[in-house]
Amino acid sequence: MLGTFTYHNPTKLYFGQGSIQSLNEELPKYGSGVVLIYGGGSIKKNGIYDTVVEILKENGKWVTEIAGVMPNPTLEKLYEGIQIAREHPTDLILAVGGGSVCDYAKAVAVSVHCQEDPWEKYFLRQEEPDCPVIPVGCVLTMVGTGSEMNAGSVITNQETKQKIGKVFEDERVMPRFSILDPVYTLTLPHYQMVSGIYDIFNHICEQYFSGEDDNTSDYISEGLMRSLLHASRVANVDPQNYEARSNIMWTATWALNTLVSKGKSTDWMVHMLGQAVGGFTDAAHGMTLAAVSLPYYRFLLPHGLARFKRFAVNVWDVRPEGKSDRQIAEEGLTAMEAWMRELGLVMNLTQLGVTEEMLEGLADVTFVLPGGYNPPSREEIIGIFKESL
Amino acid sequence: MLGTFTYHNPTKLYFGQGSIQSLNEELPKYGSGVVLIYGGGSIKKNGIYDTVVEILKENGKWVTEIAGVMPNPTLEKLYEGIQIAREHPTDLILAVGGGSVCDYAKAVAVSVHCQEDPWEKYFLRQEEPDCPVIPVGCVLTMVGTGSEMNAGSVITNQETKQKIGKVFEDERVMPRFSILDPVYTLTLPHYQMVSGIYDIFNHICEQYFSGEDDNTSDYISEGLMRSLLHASRVANVDPQNYEARSNIMWTATWALNTLVSKGKSTDWMVHMLGQAVGGFTDAAHGMTLAAVSLPYYRFLLPHGLARFKRFAVNVWDVRPEGKSDRQIAEEGLTAMEAWMRELGLVMNLTQLGVTEEMLEGLADVTFVLPGGYNPPSREEIIGIFKESL
Repeated sequence: MLGTFTYHNPTKLYFGQGSIQSLNEELPKYGSGVVLIYGGGSIKKNGIYDTVVEILKENGKWVTEIAGVMPNPTLEKLYEGIQIAREHPTDLILAVGGGSVCDYAKAVAVSVHCQEDPWEKYFLRQEEPDCPVIPVGCVLTMVGTGSEMNAGSVITNQETKQKIGKVFEDERVMPRFSILDPVYTLTLPHYQMVSGIYDIFNHICEQYFSGEDDNTSDYISEGLMRSLLHASRVANVDPQNYEARSNIMWTATWALNTLVSKGKSTDWMVHMLGQAVGGFTDAAHGMTLAAVSLPYYRFLLPHGLARFKRFAVNVWDVRPEGKSDRQIAEEGLTAMEAWMRELGLVMNLTQLGVTEEMLEGLADVTFVLPGGYNPPSREEIIGIFKESL
Repeated sequence: MLGTFTYHNPTKLYFGQGSIQSLNEELPKYGSGVVLIYGGGSIKKNGIYDTVVEILKENGKWVTEIAGVMPNPTLEKLYEGIQIAREHPTDLILAVGGGSVCDYAKAVAVSVHCQEDPWEKYFLRQEEPDCPVIPVGCVLTMVGTGSEMNAGSVITNQETKQKIGKVFEDERVMPRFSILDPVYTLTLPHYQMVSGIYDIFNHICEQYFSGEDDNTSDYISEGLMRSLLHASRVANVDPQNYEARSNIMWTATWALNTLVSKGKSTDWMVHMLGQAVGGFTDAAHGMTLAAVSLPYYRFLLPHGLARFKRFAVNVWDVRPEGKSDRQIAEEGLTAMEAWMRELGLVMNLTQLGVTEEMLEGLADVTFVLPGGYNPPSREEIIGIFKESL
């Protein structure tokens, strides 16, 4: 049931080869103080950094940098960024990187003028900002999280080993603009490319595997999944295929910008399991999801049988004739597993450095939200992690 | 190929039963002068008018009315509306009705401060506004056109029998907000409901039937079409089914808010043929499209064979085994025809009052845009109209 909701997504997207030049359209809308945020320095090797800095200079901006944002941005790094932004003119925060950098930029944006501790307020208590929020713009260089067109942010507290996401309702947290040039993604290593692809796929699954009815979100989700399967297979053997990488990039944005969540009550359980692993191992986010997905979905299947059957038929083209619902549903997961192996995803937690001794600790930091077909108990969570080893 | 584009859709949508109360959130954002636009008075019978006027009063608005907007808003009516808006305080134009009323409201919004003749400037010369544009809000009571979340407007010049659409690039023309309560659509007669459903379906088709590649827009389009087929079959036998009507309403918005046009080069040929008929007959828009669709698509099929084959398999579940591409593609159109007959759509132009003598005149006012698989010649257009009689 679609129910009652508000949809408003004001982020302006500039898509396609050469779209970085659109910065020239956007920058004049903000004051002269720009905080430029990026990650490990790959943007310095591939020339994106130089291009961005040149455009910033041409537009007369005063630039302060926060470099070294890690794949799982830490709370410590957040405190450092807040301090830097507070000490420098910050009219716009420009994130250049993947989803982690965008997530981090949003966390800084809501914290600079916040009197309270942002970890406590936004992540532990899940509150909304009641202070000015600094505008954020993104130049995307990696694909997967959808952070470029949503109000989500994930921060990891290394001390408590908690990796917590916050989806802000306040639309001031959404990027004002995002620049999506598929060319920027062509230099990513295969490992990161497929990790991102699985992250996208799982974002759609998380929303799709809830509810019993056939609403428009389900059908759009199926379209997005089919598009991703097609493009991922092309990109897997031909990573330089611009067209395939374009479709992956575009699918990623629509997989997690609130559209396909309308009418769905999601528990984001695979992300809860994967984020627990991320808090312990610093593994690539998409790979943590890949490693726990099949054990979790096989646990969930009997509780959402009709939906898993639909998934098999509409997404994986499983022929239903002469088979039980259970058989059809299981064949869907078998097809999904074959696709995951084809891409070369990490299929178990052992490869990510998880050991049996960590399982209790992982269960301790795994949040269980309502909304799913069968929210797992602590014992079941440990069982799923064990199956994933 | 997705190519290079900008996506920005700032319209805020309030969806679901009771969403009219969201007017209380929106109205304080604008000055006190509101021009209220509606159609033939059905909103006075079903109580929507009273509700809206009460909320406007509670918010201290000074209300001027433009009533009697017809299904195909005329240029004469546009001039009348511009005059009224110029003579009264107009900080917000509030359209309450279907797509025609929204279209008309946008046409007034861009014309009040325009020094030139709006017909010449916006519709004949297809120019953009270079004057202030008055904000528009919509309360939707009929479903189909997608006008609630796009910058399109269609006006009919009765004198020259031209029905011309303009899709503005200027995002100031987009509704600032739209209120979509599926309950408001429950009282529509069956004829108008199915006319709207076909309009939605054809919007998706117009964008889907272009290009050769498999881009994300194609997959989203297939999802939207499948959602609409499912919901339309439920609503056809059970028009009071709120859930089905919700999904139809939501699909309509996404069918024509620029999302599924990304990477597509469309000629909107069915609309060009249908709008020509609309200029001559004042028939319901969706029915004009229904009456010409199959003859046109059968004409087009050999030129876009791969796409019609895909349409048959992915939208209509035609089994491809042991059949030629041509057979598969034709079976898709046969399935589509069966669905159209199931809904009770008008399947020929004769029923809409078109006679053989009008065909030359219809061809005279049929625009042919580039971008399609095979832009028809004048003789072919006459042939398609003849087939549609």
